[in-house]
Amino acid sequence: MELIFLGTSAAIPSKKRNHSAIALKAFGEVFLFDCGEGTQRQMAKAKVSPMKIEKIFISHLHGDHLLGLPGMIQTMAFRGREEPLHIFGPQGLRGMVKVALKLGYFSMNFDVYVHEIGAGKIIEKEEYVISCAETEHTVPNLSYCFEEKKRPRFLRDKAIRLGLKPGPAFGKLHRGIPVRLGDRIIRPEEVLGKPRKGIKITYSGDTRPSQELVKLARDSHILIHEATFEAGKEDKALETGHSTASEAAEVAKRSNVKNLILTHLSTRYKRSDIIERAAREIFGDTIVAHDLMSVEVRKYATKDDS
Amino acid sequence: MELIFLGTSAAIPSKKRNHSAIALKAFGEVFLFDCGEGTQRQMAKAKVSPMKIEKIFISHLHGDHLLGLPGMIQTMAFRGREEPLHIFGPQGLRGMVKVALKLGYFSMNFDVYVHEIGAGKIIEKEEYVISCAETEHTVPNLSYCFEEKKRPRFLRDKAIRLGLKPGPAFGKLHRGIPVRLGDRIIRPEEVLGKPRKGIKITYSGDTRPSQELVKLARDSHILIHEATFEAGKEDKALETGHSTASEAAEVAKRSNVKNLILTHLSTRYKRSDIIERAAREIFGDTIVAHDLMSVEVRKYATKDDS
Repeated sequence: MELIFLGTSAAIPSKKRNHSAIALKAFGEVFLFDCGEGTQRQMAKAKVSPMKIEKIFISHLHGDHLLGLPGMIQTMAFRGREEPLHIFGPQGLRGMVKVALKLGYFSMNFDVYVHEIGAGKIIEKEEYVISCAETEHTVPNLSYCFEEKKRPRFLRDKAIRLGLKPGPAFGKLHRGIPVRLGDRIIRPEEVLGKPRKGIKITYSGDTRPSQELVKLARDSHILIHEATFEAGKEDKALETGHSTASEAAEVAKRSNVKNLILTHLSTRYKRSDIIERAAREIFGDTIVAHDLMSVEVRKYATKDDS
Repeated sequence: MELIFLGTSAAIPSKKRNHSAIALKAFGEVFLFDCGEGTQRQMAKAKVSPMKIEKIFISHLHGDHLLGLPGMIQTMAFRGREEPLHIFGPQGLRGMVKVALKLGYFSMNFDVYVHEIGAGKIIEKEEYVISCAETEHTVPNLSYCFEEKKRPRFLRDKAIRLGLKPGPAFGKLHRGIPVRLGDRIIRPEEVLGKPRKGIKITYSGDTRPSQELVKLARDSHILIHEATFEAGKEDKALETGHSTASEAAEVAKRSNVKNLILTHLSTRYKRSDIIERAAREIFGDTIVAHDLMSVEVRKYATKDDS
């Protein structure tokens, strides 16, 4: 499971930072959170294929978080994609995507499904749940939470002692399905241990600090939070619906996350020290993301457990 | 006068090459030819301000040549632009720009004028003329020609000998306006020498080789021509409405230009040697553009004259 920060700039891009986008590689697919202009090229640099994207999550309908959609879709079409694409986001997204599909002559051979969503659980699969909260910006903003399902440990040695052979039966039992062994039935409980905690990652989008976000992010391994401004610029943050580094750190502290990664820095900050330092005064386990930064999630998220 | 190649890739971007866009800095403004996704960031890298752009010229309505427009316009709005913006291109451009202005919530305080144009002269100013030709692609494509007006040389020494002092009078005479010196009138002919040839630059957009382009590019100092494919891929070029390196070089030769700059390379070419070599067999003064390549036009265009 890998997080790749494709773009980490606020509003306008700089030499070093592209518009917002974060890729999460997990369970054989690429989950894309926000898709600012130039995201497809950042993916080429990060060697992540757009063809692996099944779902895109847009936090809000400001250009710097969605202007990469038309090009991303056209590149998928150019490459001969046939698999459907799902795009999730707040009310108004359907109209935006409809508009995005009219930009430039091209033909496509796959369907785009738009899901306008509100707070709550939006996707539940065998391995993970994705949910979101409505948080505070100048326009409706969704913060997203990706949570791996808690799965019991599979007690491989015990299964072998019971006479089972490694193979499909192991998978079935791990998924909670009893299997037959000769004339007896092996029940999952016999070979399953205590569950391990699933990875939890929360992404703020553009937002003021809020109780909804604290609740959504509760106990996350990683909270990715915007930090458009440095500490002390609270007025400016309030006025523009953003957060300062200190405000982001307060959210991390209050929600008891393990790690905080700050992103979405105003182009006024040529270096990130000022953002990082202020946040660390409040929440020690903070880093500031840079473009193409890769985070090996399991290693990083569990570093405090070891 | 400076040409900056902001993006030099065909269809999709690569690690090294962004989508199509070329900036020409001349007479105090920035002329932008095509505006692929990510152009505003390439401009940040090249230190060219979007606020200096008054006119954008779109060759054709394929995404890789225009998807940078929405972000470019929104960034101009974000920076408080008030000056109007003019966008030129083929039929259908008006609808595209209308759509582009609907992508994402933002407010703007300047007017965007769209000019749907055909072959012929499109702009004439005191210092330059811009004209275009309709050339052959899978969708309507315009090739553009920027031509500095021929201006007579100003014979400074002679003006001083006549008793004139350097200042506004020099500029007036150079522009063809008589000036008074004491009780006599100095006529422009007295202080103007032979005209020097104005700089002429032609840009192909995406196109097959054609007689229209040869005519437009006639005697240019610089012909910027697409070379999507290597020599030998003529079938592929014909099928997709593009040119090979050899075909581009033939156009350069037939139109008697001084220099050929190739751009719009397919991402299949990790290195440009194969493109450059083939073109040079036909037209020696060829180079292949790379992203952020800057060309000092007067120096470069007149190198053969010296």
